[in-house]
Amino acid sequence: MRIGLYQFAPEFAKTEKNIRNITEAVKRSDADILVFPEMALSGYLFTSREEVRRAAVRPDGPWINGLREAADKQGCYVVIGLPELSDDGFYNSAVLIGPDGHVGTYRKVHLFYEEKSYFGAGNLGFPVFRIKGLSLGILICFDHMYPEAARCLALQGVEVICHPSNLVLPEYGQLTTRVRSIENRVFWILANRTGSEERGGKRLAYTGCSQITAPDGKILTQAGEKEEELLTVEIDPSSACDKRVTPLDDLFSDRRTDVYSRYLDTDVKCPDL
Amino acid sequence: MRIGLYQFAPEFAKTEKNIRNITEAVKRSDADILVFPEMALSGYLFTSREEVRRAAVRPDGPWINGLREAADKQGCYVVIGLPELSDDGFYNSAVLIGPDGHVGTYRKVHLFYEEKSYFGAGNLGFPVFRIKGLSLGILICFDHMYPEAARCLALQGVEVICHPSNLVLPEYGQLTTRVRSIENRVFWILANRTGSEERGGKRLAYTGCSQITAPDGKILTQAGEKEEELLTVEIDPSSACDKRVTPLDDLFSDRRTDVYSRYLDTDVKCPDL
Repeated sequence: MRIGLYQFAPEFAKTEKNIRNITEAVKRSDADILVFPEMALSGYLFTSREEVRRAAVRPDGPWINGLREAADKQGCYVVIGLPELSDDGFYNSAVLIGPDGHVGTYRKVHLFYEEKSYFGAGNLGFPVFRIKGLSLGILICFDHMYPEAARCLALQGVEVICHPSNLVLPEYGQLTTRVRSIENRVFWILANRTGSEERGGKRLAYTGCSQITAPDGKILTQAGEKEEELLTVEIDPSSACDKRVTPLDDLFSDRRTDVYSRYLDTDVKCPDL
Repeated sequence: MRIGLYQFAPEFAKTEKNIRNITEAVKRSDADILVFPEMALSGYLFTSREEVRRAAVRPDGPWINGLREAADKQGCYVVIGLPELSDDGFYNSAVLIGPDGHVGTYRKVHLFYEEKSYFGAGNLGFPVFRIKGLSLGILICFDHMYPEAARCLALQGVEVICHPSNLVLPEYGQLTTRVRSIENRVFWILANRTGSEERGGKRLAYTGCSQITAPDGKILTQAGEKEEELLTVEIDPSSACDKRVTPLDDLFSDRRTDVYSRYLDTDVKCPDL
């Protein structure tokens, strides 16, 4: 099983060009699962809802045709971030596309900064997709900051977490996702973007350094800060099913839900907040 | 407000010598809160329950007298790991001692490896102690691996987490505790031990590198791998009350408990585990 990522700089509002770029990467890659950045189709720095409307696509729209063909030819699945058009508005989403087309969609649960003005908060939960004999989950960018997000996926048995990102806070995402790998014993594909965007008086610089980490926290591969890179590594997904840190310490069966539930099952118990 | 730690190598079964060492550190320090390693009174590598019985002390026993006097003179609070003797058995505990003596006890919730043979699992929850105008929580060593532990404390409003440790897995604790600081926006005092122990055919080497991290993940001070070190830093505890990463992103009020609760409120929903 080979898993990979494509780190690049999507161009704002140039959907067709970005899709061509993504499709070429699929054709060049030997990965079984290939992950692309957040908003890889559209670029990220929207400054109005009208811009979002112009860029948004349906997850199973005709735009996926060429990509589906490439996925079919390569026998691979791809995860791509995009602005989703739905009947009830827009979402910051990532879609899973395979040889047969659209498999499923994840809508970002923890929106970041001005995304809150443009997108609805994710309302599909943390879905798990079963492909090629493994279970896969998707998180998007800022979701990394909340340990609950990865935990919700890991407790459903995912071996791999795909993480399309547009990280702008230095170091945080690379650090937290490595720890999420360790604490959940899962593989983690952080596909970040590079470059910067300057629009409407605002500027964002993206941190690159995409990486894939193993259940023991080892960094299996890591991209540079600015380079466009297509990275792939060979993994044994079944190693993520073993939650033991030592023969006597299983991180999942040793969870003390009896204790957590006194504090975490409701927010009412936190008077200071 | 000054917070600190004392990294050293407690000697196995030499309780009086270790207490002298600890008391001297309290006298030398200018910290308001000073944290010592796990099992700082006794050493760690027990090979029988009988050895635990010989080393175990009551949290408010006469052994604290000299220490309380030093704490009183310095106007400080100390957190010290020890094998606790209680009416219903032994616990891997840490006590908080101040100018007036014993303030409270935390019993390790997530026991590691052969501790499970010698100690009862923590049954006092995750208590919060209010001293010097701030709220403080305690975790012990392997608790760091479970994001729920720090979360339970942070949601109760602690600004500082004291973390007596005897870390043996390279890098893990130093990485995870930095991320716990970031995701909970709290100060974290990781007081690890140094040296190694060899007893009954077993050997453990401790990783040192104690550190204090800030709510933004900055490492404020860090000890070496092998050195005995007394470290202190000046902090503003109130900075841990602000959970915002940006003006629009409050890590606590933005938690999506409506989504987490579908997955985390019970273990029944995880058929694979």
